[in-house]
Amino acid sequence: MHLSDAQRLDWLRLIRSEGIGPRTFRGLVNRFGGAGAALKALPGLAKARAKPIRITTKAEAEREIAAAARLGARFVAMGEPDYPLPLQATADAPPLICLRGDAACLKRPAVAVVGSRNASAAGLTFTERLSHALGAEGLVIVSGLARGVDARAHKAALQSGTVAVLAGGHDRIYPSEHEELVARILESGGAVIAEMPMGWEPRGRDFPRRNRIISGLSLGTIVVEAARRSGSLITARFALEQGREVFAVPGSPLDPRAEGTNDLIRDGATLCAAPEHVMAVLSPLIGGPTPDTGAEDAADRPEPALYWDEIDFSAEPVTAMAAEPAQRSLDEVSPLPAQRDDRTILLELLGPSPVPVDALARQAGVSARVVQGLLMELELDGKIWRHPGGAVSLR
Amino acid sequence: MHLSDAQRLDWLRLIRSEGIGPRTFRGLVNRFGGAGAALKALPGLAKARAKPIRITTKAEAEREIAAAARLGARFVAMGEPDYPLPLQATADAPPLICLRGDAACLKRPAVAVVGSRNASAAGLTFTERLSHALGAEGLVIVSGLARGVDARAHKAALQSGTVAVLAGGHDRIYPSEHEELVARILESGGAVIAEMPMGWEPRGRDFPRRNRIISGLSLGTIVVEAARRSGSLITARFALEQGREVFAVPGSPLDPRAEGTNDLIRDGATLCAAPEHVMAVLSPLIGGPTPDTGAEDAADRPEPALYWDEIDFSAEPVTAMAAEPAQRSLDEVSPLPAQRDDRTILLELLGPSPVPVDALARQAGVSARVVQGLLMELELDGKIWRHPGGAVSLR
Repeated sequence: MHLSDAQRLDWLRLIRSEGIGPRTFRGLVNRFGGAGAALKALPGLAKARAKPIRITTKAEAEREIAAAARLGARFVAMGEPDYPLPLQATADAPPLICLRGDAACLKRPAVAVVGSRNASAAGLTFTERLSHALGAEGLVIVSGLARGVDARAHKAALQSGTVAVLAGGHDRIYPSEHEELVARILESGGAVIAEMPMGWEPRGRDFPRRNRIISGLSLGTIVVEAARRSGSLITARFALEQGREVFAVPGSPLDPRAEGTNDLIRDGATLCAAPEHVMAVLSPLIGGPTPDTGAEDAADRPEPALYWDEIDFSAEPVTAMAAEPAQRSLDEVSPLPAQRDDRTILLELLGPSPVPVDALARQAGVSARVVQGLLMELELDGKIWRHPGGAVSLR
Repeated sequence: MHLSDAQRLDWLRLIRSEGIGPRTFRGLVNRFGGAGAALKALPGLAKARAKPIRITTKAEAEREIAAAARLGARFVAMGEPDYPLPLQATADAPPLICLRGDAACLKRPAVAVVGSRNASAAGLTFTERLSHALGAEGLVIVSGLARGVDARAHKAALQSGTVAVLAGGHDRIYPSEHEELVARILESGGAVIAEMPMGWEPRGRDFPRRNRIISGLSLGTIVVEAARRSGSLITARFALEQGREVFAVPGSPLDPRAEGTNDLIRDGATLCAAPEHVMAVLSPLIGGPTPDTGAEDAADRPEPALYWDEIDFSAEPVTAMAAEPAQRSLDEVSPLPAQRDDRTILLELLGPSPVPVDALARQAGVSARVVQGLLMELELDGKIWRHPGGAVSLR
């Protein structure tokens, strides 16, 4: 898929409008058949609200595209060839990313290396060795440009390729002392990605939201040092929810910077004390199919409301909804890759031979709990047989 | 069971005789009905050998008992009330232990805390906190009296109770600077255990052999700091083979003293960064049945030949065997607790309801591999039924 300039402008206007986040965006575009149509429908949809929602104007979106262009950045939409597939496979992937640098490095297998801003000397040394070694293995190192572990990971991977994900806009590098690092990442063929608008000064809650992109770009996330309740653990949690690997570097129980990583290991993350520990897990995944959709367990997923002020238009009464857009140009029709529902996926995976439920869940990329619920429905509908040992088959 | 003085002398003579280790001891006593009878049979058994085996004399054994008594030590035989049950449940448990101190502390649940002689300051601090906390939870701390982690563990647990296991004789404390620590352990109501004879200067291979007693006395073994190929890892391996828990304290990948513990965690040991991590695993075991026999996987067990120069009398030709002892006093008949063979144990565990093979293996305390082999035999003998899903039942 390639967006026309007009479509790209519509996508940017829609995602920049008040109350629109990745989920609302997806819902509106799928419902109205395109971003342009959704923009036309939006005022009607929002009529029921006390305060009208603020829709980004064409001029505003054009100004942002121009500002990005001045920095050599461009907007890449989900579904376009330069949009990273592992990110696209995640729930709540940003519909548009603003990309500086070489999109080629986004096509290579990547691993995230994240950790404390106030890392120990040992932690920084290990970060450097690890990132260098994994870079030499052909992995792109993804991180968040923060002080400490992040910056060291980027620097160690300049030769082999590294991607920084910003919490703010491209013209608001944080911390500002890392503007030079951004320049070096770009010079060396790496890339820098922002989801937030040009001019956006990153605030506290932008960082956790940004972290889902770091983990989402990567086959796995390695947490080098992390205190309890630190941002790196949020990245690890996103990785888990996205069905990606989580690695944690162990440390002394007396070091508070190791509390988070030791906890992760106790919770099942792979202990990483050497690059081989990462490669042993990731090698089999490289060159394989795109990682799963991360529909792992919707119940455990952090509420998107924590990260976006999204308006839930699906709750709006039908009477308040706008008429379907009168004219729809073919050009405008660019629905997002349709998400098949889990029930359909299960039915497609099932056949006459009994398969264990956990294998089914794994193949469907859906949690066992969700699968069990759906299987109960399917059984009541007379669609499936239950077999001893917990296996099921199509009836 | 209580041994008479005469029996105890026979037991000591037999285990101190040339070529006799825990396995030969058990074999001979069970075969001839007692240690005295075995001693009488031994010269005949050994006739076929080029060089006659050296049998410890009554006078030599009496001198050792007297030497031990002068230090306040006494010999406790397997099966006697003061012999620690968890140790008795292990393969190759010493038939006799020489015990100084209070046998009462051997009846309480225990955990081993072991680690590097050249531990880091952080490792020592953690050892102290951990041992103190686990002592406060009611656990006796078992260790090996070595410099570093071992000594710190003992010291931190003086108030709550600690047991030291020696690699040499009671009059050959190693390192000698820990003679004072031994005195403090005894004063505080702890105990010191030796398997080797009085006067025995511990040599290299005595330490790994001793380590099986450290792990065997304990519900679990905690390794605090350990380089690769260190003695503490041998203790951990014994614990595993004995069916006990293994805990390892994580450390920085840049610290060689953490390589062994990080490896253990990667291999499945429980990460221990706080006393609660140990209690979470051990609490459910306390007050439960004696831990299993450690018959986990005989194939993986280190060859006893590595640790004892045992003569395999079972290979001696029957013609060379001594006549069964002419007169056997009732007093002499004290066979060791009979070890039922695994086949018998499986048959006893099986009933008419199908049980999964892994559950069977777990209950039998026998490795799945061994169980599978035995089940094949039993199936060929028409003793069992196979059921779908890999379950079996008595036919």
